[in-house]
Amino acid sequence: MSYQDRWLLPAGIIDSLPEESAHLEKLRRRLIDVYATWGYELVIPPLIEYLESLLVGTGQILDLQTFKLTDQFTGRLMGIRADMTPQIARIDAHRLRREVPTRLCYLGSVLHTRPNPFAGSRSPFQVGAELFGYQGVDSDIEILSLMLETLEITGITDFHIDIGHVEIYRCLVAQAKREIKQAQQPIPTTAIPAEGEESLFDFEEQLFDAIKRKADTEVKTLLSQWNISHPLRQMLSELPQLHGDAQVLQAARRLFNRDQHGVHAALDELEQLQTQWRGVPLHFDLAELRGYSYHMGVIFAAYAPQHGQAVAKGGRYDIGKAFGYSRPATGFSTNLRTLVALQPEIPATKPTAIFAPPTPTDAILAATLATTIKQLRAQGEMVIGRLPHQIGDAQAMGCDRELRLTATGWQVTPL
Amino acid sequence: MSYQDRWLLPAGIIDSLPEESAHLEKLRRRLIDVYATWGYELVIPPLIEYLESLLVGTGQILDLQTFKLTDQFTGRLMGIRADMTPQIARIDAHRLRREVPTRLCYLGSVLHTRPNPFAGSRSPFQVGAELFGYQGVDSDIEILSLMLETLEITGITDFHIDIGHVEIYRCLVAQAKREIKQAQQPIPTTAIPAEGEESLFDFEEQLFDAIKRKADTEVKTLLSQWNISHPLRQMLSELPQLHGDAQVLQAARRLFNRDQHGVHAALDELEQLQTQWRGVPLHFDLAELRGYSYHMGVIFAAYAPQHGQAVAKGGRYDIGKAFGYSRPATGFSTNLRTLVALQPEIPATKPTAIFAPPTPTDAILAATLATTIKQLRAQGEMVIGRLPHQIGDAQAMGCDRELRLTATGWQVTPL
Repeated sequence: MSYQDRWLLPAGIIDSLPEESAHLEKLRRRLIDVYATWGYELVIPPLIEYLESLLVGTGQILDLQTFKLTDQFTGRLMGIRADMTPQIARIDAHRLRREVPTRLCYLGSVLHTRPNPFAGSRSPFQVGAELFGYQGVDSDIEILSLMLETLEITGITDFHIDIGHVEIYRCLVAQAKREIKQAQQPIPTTAIPAEGEESLFDFEEQLFDAIKRKADTEVKTLLSQWNISHPLRQMLSELPQLHGDAQVLQAARRLFNRDQHGVHAALDELEQLQTQWRGVPLHFDLAELRGYSYHMGVIFAAYAPQHGQAVAKGGRYDIGKAFGYSRPATGFSTNLRTLVALQPEIPATKPTAIFAPPTPTDAILAATLATTIKQLRAQGEMVIGRLPHQIGDAQAMGCDRELRLTATGWQVTPL
Repeated sequence: MSYQDRWLLPAGIIDSLPEESAHLEKLRRRLIDVYATWGYELVIPPLIEYLESLLVGTGQILDLQTFKLTDQFTGRLMGIRADMTPQIARIDAHRLRREVPTRLCYLGSVLHTRPNPFAGSRSPFQVGAELFGYQGVDSDIEILSLMLETLEITGITDFHIDIGHVEIYRCLVAQAKREIKQAQQPIPTTAIPAEGEESLFDFEEQLFDAIKRKADTEVKTLLSQWNISHPLRQMLSELPQLHGDAQVLQAARRLFNRDQHGVHAALDELEQLQTQWRGVPLHFDLAELRGYSYHMGVIFAAYAPQHGQAVAKGGRYDIGKAFGYSRPATGFSTNLRTLVALQPEIPATKPTAIFAPPTPTDAILAATLATTIKQLRAQGEMVIGRLPHQIGDAQAMGCDRELRLTATGWQVTPL
């Protein structure tokens, strides 16, 4: 193997060199500190777990994104985490098991089998916060506030928030399925999946796919093929057009009958969110179905114009039930690397460090030099020790001052 | 699968819950900040790399410890890092490629295929510092000083340092091999490994194994079987006894002939280390061969009585040459989880947080409450928002004060 090959990194896998690492470390600390003032406690889940724990209650996309390994001890499959949220839900539901609302934050590398189509990365640095144990929209408001605070801290001012609510579609599709079922023959109880069940699944999948793509004509054709009754057919086929500013919520109130209680409860929640942030550019999209297999209420995502994908995203879910302890939850997460990349340019600062001479042979001088260096470092100064025969002078080592022996002892002097 | 199974973690894989995570985060920051004042720049290498990059120039033990994965794009084998040092050497040799001495520090999770026999962990949290581009013992002294400072910061006072130097054994065994080769018939050049070469390998492996175990009789028998000449035979057979305090260095000076230049150069380096730390309990062991395939000079490790394995360890090496840029290097690393476990008990502090009421319906009151909370958080106070119908009062949420509306506005009042 040639030297060139040895240092190649796999696609989407990167090093952070000193400059970027310093930015990442600084923002990391700032975010954890701010989350702490909101009551969010840091937890550190492991890099790998048994595959079932990582994937339970999530969906196929996460499964495809997860690297698999065999545990030498048990022969069981393990996965490298591709998303930390299920881990945090497991910690809340199993390790902490509190009855009161629990606020947790986390931060760490995750790995994906394939690079993200926009950013090309396979190793995001995930940061997030989750609030467990509260059902109402007030917890969604808190999480969305914390997400906005995260953008503010980072210095991202040009963004908009996309908001959806998966319960609207879920209510409507459940009614459509009931209609189809009632129209069909009673399904015999056999071991083989009943034909009716299979086609119901087909209907659901095709409709989901068409709505997600906002393929209006396809949606209409599908609903008429399946003989969905008039008011429901109109509601489902107009759903993809319900996106835009707060007026969308009023349009939705007109479209959906009063007896659609589930839908109106969802609209109530979205209105509460809307009144909370009159100044923030909120974009509602009632047909947004991101993470449908996993989310169960409000979902949201922040977009910045320079960035092809969501900068941060979150929403309501309940993974706890898969661990035997149902816990309503809401949370958001983002990629620290993305935040640092979108940070406004930080003006480069001049190097500031002190070059110190090697230990003198005289024992007293050596001791006073050591004490002086220790004091300077305790004051937060960077002191770089000169190695006796080293290549490079003070300037080459990024220093602007040096420690010299003067008549009054060791003194820091400019270069 | 039962719920019980779902939340089981693989052997040696652990979560850090809030209390431990807070300790880890605090010590992590303190160490990185101190390393920065010594001129060590933080770098963040990736979790996975191509296997060759991770293992080049290291040895079989690391290979066995490394989880392997297949890259879906190239079909090449990747590994999850089991040690970050080779990654940092790659960054120095390939990414930074400076001529001046380069100081780098790092911190991150590594994974091992098998649990450590003492600690049982498969997921240490590695922290370390490496100094590249300087050949002399002064850089070893700096790295060992930083390792001692790390122990001091952690509060570990009861420890001793084991010091060895792999060049002593390497010099002697090279001479023994030359003797064996000269005594044998000239080796014919064939494609098949020559018999002489094979037996030389046997000799080396058996001797290495016996010396490591300090199996004196075995060492003597082996040397006599192979007809090693007298002075060399004595030097190799007495090597395993050369361990103890600084007097070991004087005993070694007497044992090794003046013409053993390599051995005496190594002893010079050890003496320099010894004069540097007269107060620190140094334990010399000239037959210590940890990381022999990888190290090439001074090696050292810190041991604490409560802990069955090294708390921190390091030494001199050159992985850079495998990346086409030979760089003398020295460094140390430790496990942040071990440091936190060995930290003196930190007295539990009483909770200090403010419970804030939900957003009032009155717009002015809502705005003043939001401002008050924002100010308190900016001062570093933890303010936990009460969710309207939540389970748990201020005390259950770990608060000692609450925010109340009084005649003079929002006031923080004790519970």
